[in-house]
Amino acid sequence: MTDPAQILEPGARIGILGGGQLGRMLSVAAARLGFTTHIFDPSSAPPAGHVADRVTTAGFEDEAALRAFAETVDVITYEFENIPTAALDILEELKPIRPGREALRVSQDRLTEKTFLQDLGLATAPFAEVADAAELDAALEHVGTPSILKTRRFGYDGKGQVRLMDPSEAPAALAAMQGAPAILEGFVPFSHEVSVIAARSLNGKVACYDPAENVHLEGVLSTSTVPANLSTGQSMDAVLMAGKILNALDYVGVLGVEIFVTGHGLVVNEIAPRVHNSGHWTQEGCTIDQFEQHIRAIAGWTIGNGARYADVVMENLIGDDVDRIADLAKEPDCAIHLYGKTEAKPGRKMGHVNRVIRSEGRDGW
Amino acid sequence: MTDPAQILEPGARIGILGGGQLGRMLSVAAARLGFTTHIFDPSSAPPAGHVADRVTTAGFEDEAALRAFAETVDVITYEFENIPTAALDILEELKPIRPGREALRVSQDRLTEKTFLQDLGLATAPFAEVADAAELDAALEHVGTPSILKTRRFGYDGKGQVRLMDPSEAPAALAAMQGAPAILEGFVPFSHEVSVIAARSLNGKVACYDPAENVHLEGVLSTSTVPANLSTGQSMDAVLMAGKILNALDYVGVLGVEIFVTGHGLVVNEIAPRVHNSGHWTQEGCTIDQFEQHIRAIAGWTIGNGARYADVVMENLIGDDVDRIADLAKEPDCAIHLYGKTEAKPGRKMGHVNRVIRSEGRDGW
Repeated sequence: MTDPAQILEPGARIGILGGGQLGRMLSVAAARLGFTTHIFDPSSAPPAGHVADRVTTAGFEDEAALRAFAETVDVITYEFENIPTAALDILEELKPIRPGREALRVSQDRLTEKTFLQDLGLATAPFAEVADAAELDAALEHVGTPSILKTRRFGYDGKGQVRLMDPSEAPAALAAMQGAPAILEGFVPFSHEVSVIAARSLNGKVACYDPAENVHLEGVLSTSTVPANLSTGQSMDAVLMAGKILNALDYVGVLGVEIFVTGHGLVVNEIAPRVHNSGHWTQEGCTIDQFEQHIRAIAGWTIGNGARYADVVMENLIGDDVDRIADLAKEPDCAIHLYGKTEAKPGRKMGHVNRVIRSEGRDGW
Repeated sequence: MTDPAQILEPGARIGILGGGQLGRMLSVAAARLGFTTHIFDPSSAPPAGHVADRVTTAGFEDEAALRAFAETVDVITYEFENIPTAALDILEELKPIRPGREALRVSQDRLTEKTFLQDLGLATAPFAEVADAAELDAALEHVGTPSILKTRRFGYDGKGQVRLMDPSEAPAALAAMQGAPAILEGFVPFSHEVSVIAARSLNGKVACYDPAENVHLEGVLSTSTVPANLSTGQSMDAVLMAGKILNALDYVGVLGVEIFVTGHGLVVNEIAPRVHNSGHWTQEGCTIDQFEQHIRAIAGWTIGNGARYADVVMENLIGDDVDRIADLAKEPDCAIHLYGKTEAKPGRKMGHVNRVIRSEGRDGW
């Protein structure tokens, strides 16, 4: 049973940390359910600001701005996981944060996340903690090469990732970490990547969307396709993995789980405690999309059942892809979603399209 | 061929006169296509303001505010037809107004509208102009009773409508017009009402959605259902009527046509030069809904083909219907759309739901 005091009524205000495209689509979904939104973002004119009731432009280290923001809202959510811990400490004293701190604690640290997944009995890439040269040597023995050395925490420091093709590269790789705690991850030979977008309500109900199959280009998601190339058994396994993660985190909201499909089963790549690019297809494939699903969950409402009604291919519009809009608008079953970003830089996500394939329906008049 | 100079690029700003629920849903659709919006509305905190980039709170007689508004936008559209002519005169000197003045001229005057429809060869209720007592007597001879005397123009004066059951009631009815030019309209015996939501692009392409069947309660639209109870021939007739109206007006945007279904064919009740409550079902029934269709048309983009992919029953949430939200959220195929209005007055449209009936699809995980 959900405590009625935790349920938001229409008219309540939802605070969203981060005003990029995910915050923007969350804001629209919140409005559709009668909520207003307040965006907190360090950059001026964030995409979400065009469709939000209020915007605060301030950094996450600005305590006064954080407090003023929290004062105006009834619940706080976020569009990205790398929110500084100090900011969260301030906010959680004032208003509920959903999804909660545990999801952030786990997903902000690669080592914590991998250990968490392993403890749940889920397969991950081989990994080992690396704090110094001795640990890196031991890690290389355990994980082998090729492998990749990453800082444990990512967030705003932006420290890099270094690929190791041979143990002799260890000193240079370690130097690149600049003393930050690190993790060595092995490569997983996989045939393709899928993801499950899953949701859990305040009273513990879990619902998952069909797994999508993801294709990346130059490290950026290019397309997500439903249905994915999976057997029914694999789909069920993927969904059960997501459900297990949600329950273990006592999660409230939408979470994305990236999964490698290998000859030896499914391997979790990473989790994202938020709506996810690979779930954008739900906007055209489901009655209740991932954005509304997240808002419903954090508002304490009943969540949708995840049913899918069409095959969809989501394609990201990156950089000057956005120049193709006039042609895309001519495709009758191509739903366009642009993010209102003024400048199209290379690699920047400017929007996406959902191409909808339905077995029924007829031409219009 | 559309003049490329008339086509809006993403990033352009759309001005919307009126910030009610229609302006709100137009604003969200505009954002989805990468446009920003500027709402002009006399009331403070209009529903559309929560999801718009800018809001001007000013009356339609405020010339300075109108000019300042027009300066910031690339095209002007509207969510209601009764915009004072003087305001339109100011705005059209500054920026294109779409749909254009002709559509407003025709739909702002009941006599002009009925005459326009009749001249197109479309059936309407019998009607006659009434400027004085002598014309009312003549009109009653032509139209008969029961009939209804209405002011020709409606807009902001809010003058009433008087039903005449007997010619002896003529003097009292005429007095109620307070000297305003009027029209006497006869009753049409009809089995049910349908409406066609139709669109026309800047280069003259017409697309119509399937006719919806409308049920009113206490004078307010209660439900719209697709498919409507019409033969294929009747549906085709209804759609052709809408197309004829669009072409005759050289229309750009979405228009609603209300039609009575009678034993002697289809009779046009009235036209609305804007998105229409009876077209809200398109949000869940079509890839491109009526709001996006309108924005595409006024932006000079290719419009959608109107194809429908599901059966839908749209139900308006009026007054305290909004208290049923918790139950409505439990229905898996019920899409909720609330308007962000703070006070639920009797008769006030607070939101709507679209119940979606699909022949395919499966339960979620």
